[in-house]
This record gives sequence, structure tokens and C-alpha cells, in this order.
Amino acid sequence: MKIQQWGEEGFIEHLREQFLSTSEVLGIGDDCAVIPMEKEKVLLVTTDALVEGIHFLKDQISPQDLGYKAITVNISDIAAKGGRPLYAFLSIALPLSVDKEWLQQLTVGLKEGCDESNILLLGGDTVGSKRDIFLNISLIGTSLRSHVKYRHTAKVGDLICVSGFLGDSGGGLLALQKKVQRTEDIEQLIHAHFHPRAHLNEGIWLAGQENVHAMMDLSDGLDCDLKRLLKASHCSGEIEVTDLPISTTLKRACSSNGWDAERLALTGGEDYCLLFTVEPHAWKEIERQFQTQFGYSLYRIGQITEQAELLTYRKNDHVIDLSLKSFTHFHEK
Amino acid sequence: MKIQQWGEEGFIEHLREQFLSTSEVLGIGDDCAVIPMEKEKVLLVTTDALVEGIHFLKDQISPQDLGYKAITVNISDIAAKGGRPLYAFLSIALPLSVDKEWLQQLTVGLKEGCDESNILLLGGDTVGSKRDIFLNISLIGTSLRSHVKYRHTAKVGDLICVSGFLGDSGGGLLALQKKVQRTEDIEQLIHAHFHPRAHLNEGIWLAGQENVHAMMDLSDGLDCDLKRLLKASHCSGEIEVTDLPISTTLKRACSSNGWDAERLALTGGEDYCLLFTVEPHAWKEIERQFQTQFGYSLYRIGQITEQAELLTYRKNDHVIDLSLKSFTHFHEK
Repeated sequence: MKIQQWGEEGFIEHLREQFLSTSEVLGIGDDCAVIPMEKEKVLLVTTDALVEGIHFLKDQISPQDLGYKAITVNISDIAAKGGRPLYAFLSIALPLSVDKEWLQQLTVGLKEGCDESNILLLGGDTVGSKRDIFLNISLIGTSLRSHVKYRHTAKVGDLICVSGFLGDSGGGLLALQKKVQRTEDIEQLIHAHFHPRAHLNEGIWLAGQENVHAMMDLSDGLDCDLKRLLKASHCSGEIEVTDLPISTTLKRACSSNGWDAERLALTGGEDYCLLFTVEPHAWKEIERQFQTQFGYSLYRIGQITEQAELLTYRKNDHVIDLSLKSFTHFHEK
Repeated sequence: MKIQQWGEEGFIEHLREQFLSTSEVLGIGDDCAVIPMEKEKVLLVTTDALVEGIHFLKDQISPQDLGYKAITVNISDIAAKGGRPLYAFLSIALPLSVDKEWLQQLTVGLKEGCDESNILLLGGDTVGSKRDIFLNISLIGTSLRSHVKYRHTAKVGDLICVSGFLGDSGGGLLALQKKVQRTEDIEQLIHAHFHPRAHLNEGIWLAGQENVHAMMDLSDGLDCDLKRLLKASHCSGEIEVTDLPISTTLKRACSSNGWDAERLALTGGEDYCLLFTVEPHAWKEIERQFQTQFGYSLYRIGQITEQAELLTYRKNDHVIDLSLKSFTHFHEK
């Protein structure tokens, strides 16, 4: 059997079975591993790889954006657990054809991302590669045990919320793939794709709210990631697609190019904002305080329901079938 | 400028300059980062990548050996600082052509290596790859701050020692490259190359000896790695090549095939035993106790001298010029 059939989730499940343990460690299969340390402190560890030809094309993304994105996608995982990132480790595999100038610009972007979040790059491994560039970052952060939010802690009745627009990055990728004309809107979407922002301070703030029950970051698209949250929490969810936060930029680009904005919002991937669930009675107050703190809105898009691990989409209160194809790294893009 | 000219060391130096900090963290540029935690405890973090076509050929190494080797090379870095490994994180990039059975065997080897050293695999990232397989492991360990040995702490007059035979793995690789006949000796060398052993308990024991001053693991060959230790310690070294520990297996294979055993011992790479320096007056006692503890000998191969960062080879007390070409991952193998 080839891995295309077995799938990424199949292999991860296999690893989990093989290495299942009764240890103290939490967060296996979540955005980060959560390792208890002295007293109330926990260590958060995450690792994310970017591969040439799969996650990026060298002639499309600037090395500076690539370096920034490589650290950002890891910061986003720490943010999703409500932690602060501290130390980064870079493994990089480089073919002989790579230029010194390209690498120096990669370092500029990496440093920009590290400096913004007070992260120290402490080490790594620099190796050769036959053909493609591989970049892997491991990021260590810290939090308090009682503050960490998980995927498996959503409760029936919770509101399903996100901390930012969905689909901009997916729209940028589609624009690159379709080679559409570079209008101002298209440039903005491409920027969202190449230079995402991790919702770090938002994650720390949301993790401090006891009425936020579950949290994760959106890396593979809401449809795919919410299903993971529902599976981990053993519950179902209903999304009202008219409530999906879609930027006016994406709406305009979709209308100009005949793209489906809702589909991009659900499956485009690489949004790197936060998906979380909230106790309904606390929503208004959390929404208000968040707006005061960060100067923009949170979005309520659905609700956790009781049946087992199903995701239902509604449009103006009618159940609809979107037949979505989820984002997976084993498909060729 | 292409990275072949700039080189691995050039890029690492560039990263170090960009990310240089006045933080509490030790061990930057060493085998592990050493992060102070509560009280006397330190966290050790290392990361090592294996790339298809550079570090392994998929049709030569079994997936089980590859999984075992991927974790072992990381354990070796923790061993070199005298720590205990605890938690591993696997990033793996896989092309669509990889079989489920191959991945399951990789997991068997990975688990074998983790179980031997009581390591928990806690997470990672599974992604696609266009063509080549890329494996990265990050390993977190722990030690006491006062126990950690570094590369930069060798002292003038110290004896230079190693904890095992040199060149077996390099001989195995050469045998594979030259496609020589698979005698019993050759099979043993290939086994050393595909299934190396990390000197973990030896590292913990040596780190506990206050008269062991500097330590690192041998991954890129004695010539290359000792030069790194000398540079970090701002001193020179002299090696007596007749004292290099070369197994009878390697000697026989070299004599049958017309290979240079000393050259393999110095530049073959991937030995994964420990290189360390010892206060001369303590050598006899450390040698004796090590023999009692582990049932085999340590090897004394040279001495640290005063001039700045030079490595000299002697043969029967005459200085010789070996014109060695060091192991670097940016060269095609």
C-alpha cells in the first residue's frame, strides 16, 4: 500500500499506537507536546517542516518571506496552546545550487520572526540535499499547566469561534497557481499566503479565559482542523457558512475571478489564526474584552453539538452538503 | 556565491552572528543547546536530519536500520554532553511512492532506539515531499548544570581520548560505494554504518568525572570534529596516528581491498563514539574504572598543546602531513 492511500492521519495514528504511553506528558496529537516541569510550569514543544515543491516554490516565495513563514507556523502552534515561545532550532537541507545571498535573506526573515516574539535561535543542523530544500523548525515554549488549552476539551453547547479572516492565504495560493493578474487585492492575498501572522498575544489572552474550553490553530483549513478538534473532543459541530469571516479583499478577488469564497475559507489552509470554543454565556464579555484589548473582532461561526464527531454545514439554517476535499500534504499541489 | 564555496561552517557562523545573544543559554555551536531550568537542572536540546541521497540510499539501508540510526545520531549528541535523553519529535517528509510497509518498518527501528534509552516520541510533523525522503529528529534531554561537558573546555596538557574504534562506519560506507564482495568483515563494517550505537551510558559516566574537561561526539570524523573542539577551546592538538583505535575487522578489510585504515579512522565519519580530553594525572584511574564499569577500554590518542587551533599528526613521533579532505555534507557523496 502506498502512503497516498494510508494517508497522513493513518501514519500518525500508527505512530501513536506504537509509542502510546502512560506517561505524564499531555498534548500528544495536539499542536504541541505539553511536558510538566517544576511546580505549575509546562514546556511546550512543536516541530514543523516546509518542503520545496510541496509547501513552497523557490521561484515564487522570497527567501525572507520563507524564513519568516517557517518560524511563524511554529509560533502559531505555541500560540494555540496559550504559551510563550522561547527557543528555536533550525534544521535545513540545502542542494549545492543554493546561493549564499539566498541563505542570508532567509536568515533575515527568520530573525525578523524570532525577534518579533523574543525567540532565541539556539542551534540546529545544516546538511546537504540532492535536489529539494527542506526546512524544519522545532520551537520550545512555556506556559502554566492550568492555562494550556487543548483540542480535546470542547464541550457540548460551546460556541465555535475564530480569531481572524479565513481563506486569504488560500486565495493567494490559488492566485499564484492560476497566474491571475496582480491587482492590489491579489497582492494582499499573496502577502497573506507568504507572510502570515501568528496570533500569539491573542492565544495567550484567550488561554487566560477559563470559559474558553478548547483551542487549536488553523493550518490545514477550517474543515480539516475543526474535524480534528471534534474527533479529539468526541462531539459534533455545526457551522453556519454565512457567518464565516471572509475579508472584503477575498470577496472582491473571488467575484472578479469566479472563485468560491466559502470553499476557500473552509479548505484554503494556512490561515494561522485560532479556532476555539467558548461557553455560550461568556461569549459577549469575551468578545467585548478582546475587542478592547486587540482592536478587532472575534468571530462566532457555529456551535458544538452532541452527536459523535460529525461536522455539519448550514446556510441560512438549512443543512447543506459542500462535498469538500480536505487539504493534505500527501496530495500533489 | 554558491554554498559549496561558502560552506556549512560559513553558514553556521553567519547564523551565530545574526542570532548572537547575551542570554543565559550555553552550548550554542556545541552538540546540544544547554538551557538552565529550575535549580541545578539543565535542558539539553539537539536536532539532526537525515536526507535521502546524502545520508542514506533507500535501496541500501533497511527502513528499520534507518529509523534506529535517526534516533541514535541524536542520542549521541545528548550523550556527548553527559545527559539523559527524554523526549523525541519526528519530522518526516515523504514522497507518494513510499510504501506503508516501509514506514511501519521505519517505526520499528525508531521504537527500538527509543525503547533502549527510555525515550518517549511525543510528536512531530508528517508532510509530503516531491522526490526525496527527509527525516529530522529533535531530542530533548536533561542533566545537571555542573555535569555538562562542552567542546570549549579542553585544557593545555590534556590527553585526547576516544571511547571506541574509529573508521568502521566509514569502511562500511566505502564497501557499499565500491560494491566490494560481502565477506563477514565487510558485513560487520556495513552493520557499523547502518546500525551505530550511541555511547550514552559512557557519556553519562564520563561527564561525572571532574577530570574529563571537554567532550563531543564523533559524527563527521576525528579530523573534522577534533578541529572543531580545538577551535572552540582555543588550543592545538597532536595525534599519534599509530595510537588510533582501529578494529581488526577494519584492518583486515583494508588490507584485502587496498584501503588506507588510518585515513578511514580520521575522515570516515559517523563513528558516534565520544571524543574527550582528560587531565593527565587522572588518566590511569579513569581508564581503570571505565574498564571495570563497561568491560572495554578507552583509547588515548594524543594531547592538547598550546599553540592556537592547529591539529598536527605524528607517526612514531615524526610530524606527518596527511592532506586530509574533511567530511562535509555539502559535498556530493
